[in-house]
Amino acid sequence: MSEQNAKRSMDRRHFLAGAGLAGAAVASSKAGAQTKPDPLITEVQDWSRFLGDGVQARPYGTPSKFEKHIVRQDVEWLTVSRESSVNFTPIHALDGVITPSGLAFERHHGGIAEIDPAKHRIMINGLVDRPLVFTMEDLKRMPGRVNRAYFLECAANSGMEWRGAQLNGCQFTHGMIHNVWYTGVPLKVLLDEAGVKTSGKWVMPEGADASLMTRSIPIEKAMKDCLVAFGMNGEALRPEQGYPVRLVVPGWEGNMWVKWLRRVEVGDQPWHAREETSKYTDLLADGRSRRFTWIMDAKSVVTSPSPQAPMKHKGANVLSGIAWSGRGTVTRVDVSLDGGRNWKTARIEGPSLPMSMVRFYFDFEWDGRELMVQSRAMDNTGYVQPTKQELRAVRGTNSIYHNNGIQTWLVHGNGEVENVEIS
Amino acid sequence: MSEQNAKRSMDRRHFLAGAGLAGAAVASSKAGAQTKPDPLITEVQDWSRFLGDGVQARPYGTPSKFEKHIVRQDVEWLTVSRESSVNFTPIHALDGVITPSGLAFERHHGGIAEIDPAKHRIMINGLVDRPLVFTMEDLKRMPGRVNRAYFLECAANSGMEWRGAQLNGCQFTHGMIHNVWYTGVPLKVLLDEAGVKTSGKWVMPEGADASLMTRSIPIEKAMKDCLVAFGMNGEALRPEQGYPVRLVVPGWEGNMWVKWLRRVEVGDQPWHAREETSKYTDLLADGRSRRFTWIMDAKSVVTSPSPQAPMKHKGANVLSGIAWSGRGTVTRVDVSLDGGRNWKTARIEGPSLPMSMVRFYFDFEWDGRELMVQSRAMDNTGYVQPTKQELRAVRGTNSIYHNNGIQTWLVHGNGEVENVEIS
Repeated sequence: MSEQNAKRSMDRRHFLAGAGLAGAAVASSKAGAQTKPDPLITEVQDWSRFLGDGVQARPYGTPSKFEKHIVRQDVEWLTVSRESSVNFTPIHALDGVITPSGLAFERHHGGIAEIDPAKHRIMINGLVDRPLVFTMEDLKRMPGRVNRAYFLECAANSGMEWRGAQLNGCQFTHGMIHNVWYTGVPLKVLLDEAGVKTSGKWVMPEGADASLMTRSIPIEKAMKDCLVAFGMNGEALRPEQGYPVRLVVPGWEGNMWVKWLRRVEVGDQPWHAREETSKYTDLLADGRSRRFTWIMDAKSVVTSPSPQAPMKHKGANVLSGIAWSGRGTVTRVDVSLDGGRNWKTARIEGPSLPMSMVRFYFDFEWDGRELMVQSRAMDNTGYVQPTKQELRAVRGTNSIYHNNGIQTWLVHGNGEVENVEIS
Repeated sequence: MSEQNAKRSMDRRHFLAGAGLAGAAVASSKAGAQTKPDPLITEVQDWSRFLGDGVQARPYGTPSKFEKHIVRQDVEWLTVSRESSVNFTPIHALDGVITPSGLAFERHHGGIAEIDPAKHRIMINGLVDRPLVFTMEDLKRMPGRVNRAYFLECAANSGMEWRGAQLNGCQFTHGMIHNVWYTGVPLKVLLDEAGVKTSGKWVMPEGADASLMTRSIPIEKAMKDCLVAFGMNGEALRPEQGYPVRLVVPGWEGNMWVKWLRRVEVGDQPWHAREETSKYTDLLADGRSRRFTWIMDAKSVVTSPSPQAPMKHKGANVLSGIAWSGRGTVTRVDVSLDGGRNWKTARIEGPSLPMSMVRFYFDFEWDGRELMVQSRAMDNTGYVQPTKQELRAVRGTNSIYHNNGIQTWLVHGNGEVENVEIS
């Protein structure tokens, strides 16, 4: 299962042997060596025989009908009302570095506000020299517009796993995350235009949805890299992501990225809003709580194989996963196939940008033995993703937030995969 | 209209003045300075009052209903049949560096093949040691999978403009382009597995659609950076982009990026297929044709302002556009507001990757005077995008391919924008 073996495995003899064992219908093979001709090669198929749909069949395109099962999902027993719930990204079925906008995790506290952009206003007020009101058109005329890729992770991602392996699929254990390109104006540009008074130490973004979401953010972060974003993956924000405008708070917990942004107030102290007191605080074993735990620490997960993406073939295989760090850039991801005894460095493939998700691959050969698959991320601050045991020793098991422990998938001999913990 | 002016223009007094002149309903302003309270600020709106849709309202998300007009479009007089036609990217309404998959330019020769991935096969044959057949699952088990962002431009993009300004909108003059992230396996990996004979000098990819698209590609390019791609912007390829698998030929004309890829044949000479003889050759003034003109030279276009994105406000404005080069990386984009007399360097904002589109911005102040807006791209080979006059001097006006001349938009005093040429 070493990288050397993986390379050897692509020797065609090994590749054939592995595919044969797994009983694939038609595996990569010497065409001449097949026992009988494959009609999918020798016969003209209908799609080569008849004209397909023309242009304008779908002015706004949609996925193939053969991909209809790849959708966001909620978890019934986690859902009290769908207006205040979570729809998980199907990360087990995705690849690359961008989350498609149609599949990006959504979490609401009052449902999806449906806002006419012509009627939307953004106010900057509080401890400023000049309170300002912006229309969407004003925002798009501001100088300094930028394009940045950032991950957004809910603080509660993997939250159900504090007390042990519960949800059998990475969509549900790790799917409260997405990674998209944002287009917007630095919040600093708007704050500078308003003129923050020297007494201004915090900002409070407020949403225009029915939950009127509010969070307190230190002025240093607001000035450093927060964005007032109107674009996402090249087009306008999607409704469930805050159309027409949201706050982007790179590397920090998703709840702070206030959607449907209508106001940013500048103050001299935090507001102690509901979502930073009764929610989004980390209850420790001794009954005290950690507060203002904003940064999402380095984390990773293997998305294939995983319970929703079982292994189907012996021989050559590609292990794939995602990693991210709210402190900076992911510099390395290691993977283990034996529950953390031996580690190999995976290939990070594609861009590795600050506070953005990376994709990693590990090419290996599977001989059909049981595997205990893990991954651990490291970032440019030297931080190493901890084990769940290490996390629990410090933080107990009362919280549902900020669980970035190493995930273990048990791959059975038949290729099925299960969420487990190593005791 | 200098950058210095643009910065000064954001002085709130200028900003206000500009906005006021343009008659915006409510412009960025001192909140206290408004003559009467804005009910969109002082009154609670319906979207803040009532719960919105919950999660699972759209398991696969779609854009806001307020963005329904942003779609791909064809041009009636260019369309003989929609099964062999073009659907243009609405680049005038997009931003950032990624083209959303639902809006990505499509061009078909036999309609959109609708292929069951379980029944799709990819054959490598011809001058190889071992002909091979791959299933989609085989392909996804191959080592060396990569993620890369590349632009795809049709050789005929801007083709109608050879004989003068014709189409009044950048969607139609420059919209035969998209820029997405691909996930796939280098073609070299498959060719190496098959073992290309020393006599193998060319490859011919073949599509499984009703047009059975075929093109000849030199083996050096096939081995250098071509991809057999199954992923696009994080998910499976879209049907109109070749689902389940297409060829990616970075920097080269889009017609060679064979969709619904079913076969790659290795040969010792080009095949002289229909699409590289009667089509995709450049008829010169003297009746001779240029052939095998694969590389898409450096090009750019201002997308805002443009005929479909008129100017609405005096004062502060953001000029925005896209640039690309099939020879490498775009290193600089200059813009002119006076028809090429004076040039300023624009900000390239976001990643600048090889053979990938870049986004540029130029923050400026508009005093309401007529403008002649242009942009010109430069790449890391030193190539500078030519004027249309320079192009025509060499290539005449018979061709419809490879027009990368500088585009001019005339901005009238009322903000409307027109496609013009400077004589």
